Parts: sequence; C-alpha cells; structure tokens
Amino acid sequence: MSEQKEVALLEGERIDDLLTDSGLKIIQSREVFSFSLDAVLLARFAKLPKRGRIADFCTGNGVIALLCSDKTEAQIDAIEIQPRLAEMARRNVTMNDLQHRIEVIEEDLRSYALHAGNGIYHAITVNPPYMRPAAGDKNDNEHYAIARHELYCTIEDIAKATCKLLRPGGKLFMVHRPSRLADIIQSLRNWKIEPKVIQFVHPNQHGEANMVLIEAIRDGRPDLRVLPPQIVYNEAGEQMI
Amino acid sequence: MSEQKEVALLEGERIDDLLTDSGLKIIQSREVFSFSLDAVLLARFAKLPKRGRIADFCTGNGVIALLCSDKTEAQIDAIEIQPRLAEMARRNVTMNDLQHRIEVIEEDLRSYALHAGNGIYHAITVNPPYMRPAAGDKNDNEHYAIARHELYCTIEDIAKATCKLLRPGGKLFMVHRPSRLADIIQSLRNWKIEPKVIQFVHPNQHGEANMVLIEAIRDGRPDLRVLPPQIVYNEAGEQMI
Repeated sequence: MSEQKEVALLEGERIDDLLTDSGLKIIQSREVFSFSLDAVLLARFAKLPKRGRIADFCTGNGVIALLCSDKTEAQIDAIEIQPRLAEMARRNVTMNDLQHRIEVIEEDLRSYALHAGNGIYHAITVNPPYMRPAAGDKNDNEHYAIARHELYCTIEDIAKATCKLLRPGGKLFMVHRPSRLADIIQSLRNWKIEPKVIQFVHPNQHGEANMVLIEAIRDGRPDLRVLPPQIVYNEAGEQMI
Repeated sequence: MSEQKEVALLEGERIDDLLTDSGLKIIQSREVFSFSLDAVLLARFAKLPKRGRIADFCTGNGVIALLCSDKTEAQIDAIEIQPRLAEMARRNVTMNDLQHRIEVIEEDLRSYALHAGNGIYHAITVNPPYMRPAAGDKNDNEHYAIARHELYCTIEDIAKATCKLLRPGGKLFMVHRPSRLADIIQSLRNWKIEPKVIQFVHPNQHGEANMVLIEAIRDGRPDLRVLPPQIVYNEAGEQMI
C-alpha cells in the first residue's frame, strides 16, 4: 500500500477510493472531471510491460495513470492539455505518493509529439474525447467539452502522435465508442498502428455495445482477434464487471 | 411452397433440405462446395428491399441467393466465377423452380462490374473467400481453394465492384472472419461504402468471435452500431442459432 499524503482540495472536489488492493485514492470534481467505467476497463485491458516508459494520453485527472501504476513499475508520463486538470492530476500523484513513478506533463499532445523524441514509449494508453467536434449536445462546461469533444485532439491526432512516440512493436491501448470504430481503424492504419485485439462492452447481453477496447501494435502484422464480449449487467441486473 | 423439379445429380452430389418453411432444397458436394452456418447467418442478417434488383457475389452453389428468395420478391443475380459451381447453382435454381427470380451469372466479378451498369442493385450480399492468397493450409482441391482463398476476388475487389454496382444508399451485407475486419473496413471506406452495423458471432460466451456480419451503405454517413453478440452454443452445449 502506498503512503498517502495530505493535499488541498478545491471547491467542489472530493476524494474517492479507487477500490484497488493498493488503496489508491483520487480527487474528482463533478464540475471539472470525474472518471467513469471506461477508465477502469481500459486500465484492466492494458497489457503493460513490467518496466520501461509508458504514456497515458488525455489523462484528465490522471485516473488511468494511477490505475496503471498498480500493474507496472514502468515510468508513466501522463499528458493533459487542460491546466486545471493537469494540476488535479499532479495533486492525485502527490496524494498517492507516486511522484517518482508518474510525471504529469501539461501540454497539447500534438506539440508534445513534435519534440519529445521518436519511439520513446514501450506502451501508450488513451481514453480520448469521444465525440466529433460538430456533434450535438456539446457541453457548456469548457472542461467537459474539451474532455468529451475532439476540440484539441482527434482520433487522427492520437494515431499520429502514437506513430511518433511509440517504439516499433510497442502497444497502444484505447477505449472508445463503437460508433467511431471505423474512424479509429482507418486512422490507426494511416499511421502504421495495426489493430490486433478488440473487445466490446455491452450494458447487458441483449444490448448493443457502448464501449470498445482496442489493442494495436506499431508496425504490427494485420490479423485481428475479437475477444468474448464483456457484459456489464447480467439478467438479474447485477453488475458483472 | 415452391414446386420442386427433378434435376440430375453428378457423382458425389447430394440434396439437402435448407430447413425453410418454403421447403427449399439444395444440391451440395463434399468435393466441390458445401454451404456452412456463415451462409445461413448472412441470409438472416440481410435486410433486403421487398422489390427491385439485388445481387449475391461469390454465390458458390447459390445457397444465399436461394435463402434470400424467401425474404424478398426482388430479382436476384447470383454471380460465380467457377463454371462447375455456377452450373450447380443453376441446377439449384431449377430444382427450386426459381428461374423467374434468380439468374446465375458465370463471370469474374471484376469484369462483370466493368460492364453490368452503374448503381443497378438495391442491395448486395456476399460471403467472400476468407483467406489471404499467401495464407497457409491452401486447399489442394481447386474448387475449395478458389472459394476459400483470395485468388480471384480480394476484399478490395468486392468493395470496388460494390461501389460500381450498388446504388447510392443501397446496402451491402457481408459475412467474414473477424481477423480481416480492419482490412474490410479500410477497403469499404476506400470505395465509399460506409460500415453501419456489425454483429459478431461467438462459438460460446467465453470464446473469441469466429464470424462477423457487416452491413454497409454506399455513401453512408460514418456512425457504426455493434449489435448484441450471437452466441452459437449455450453453457449446456445446445445450439442457440
């Protein structure tokens, strides 16, 4: 169990338990950013190298970087464009005493990819904004709008940055909406990132998929596996995952 | 129930019942071509227009065209490159007295698409060869080799022919292996055929998908739905579909 430190909370923030054996905790805010099941499923899905250097793109309050720190001893760079969220992620790292393992980098992923170096990461995780910039019901809250809509980071931006930053043979793990799967596959292939494993998440066994988990390999050979579906609620309405 | 006529069987051929309410029967041959669950699932999956003109590419012994004739009153063109299979498909059409509804066209799809006319079909079904030409375990039997390997018809060939022959807004229905999904999505998009609905078929609820059903629309808007999975065998080992 990591030693936890006192950190200051801003207005509207609360501390939640991440329900891990290691006792990870996280600062959240309904007004700014709260993680959801997507992040937990992505962290579980990611097969991370034991050591080396990995990145979490679009890290938000850092939830995926925190959860990944339980699975690997790799150095984790958590990249976030929004100052308010990067600052929250930094406090999350400090609160969990993970400063030696996780570095929060406050920068636009597109510019970061230009100077950080070629092939520096062994693996990358990303829970990107899901919606097209032009999509309806755009959130009035700027923090949520940027986290949910492709205002500063499109699927193509992520694929391009991954191609630059991931070493050949390195793996990208992404969670997204099934509605965007064709866009994702096309963009990944545009940038030599080959989709290798896909798993769909269905709310129940009779429902359409509402999440997709994707493992892709830089310069991988074309050959895709589709894992058994994850079903969130069983027939009795009990949560299964 | 359609009236069935006597037709001659060649050596090694047998007549099977297609288990439809209409009493469709089919000539099969272990040495040349036998249909499998793929064909039945594709015919069920396809949402066909009530009337108009539709095509079944790579029709083999015509099983999908026969099954589709139960679901629509459209004129069906069944296209097959192999003379031995096209001839078997023709006898299947005759045996089921469907000569007025199904025309078997013996031609290479690639050349057929060049002269048949633009946008002549309201819908297209296809159960293509699944394996890359270079893939291992190539079947020694020439008929099976052509039906199973992309020797004369690649995914790209199908997408290109569909773009030429399907009217804007018309639907393509395909069954294939999940391992080729990225190739399929990329080729369809290359030719302005947008994947809209996908359904995976799993042998059981803990098994990886071994078939994928795809509905795509010529000039469709990007937005993909992933239906609840089809599970072939339940926990008790009973066939569910």
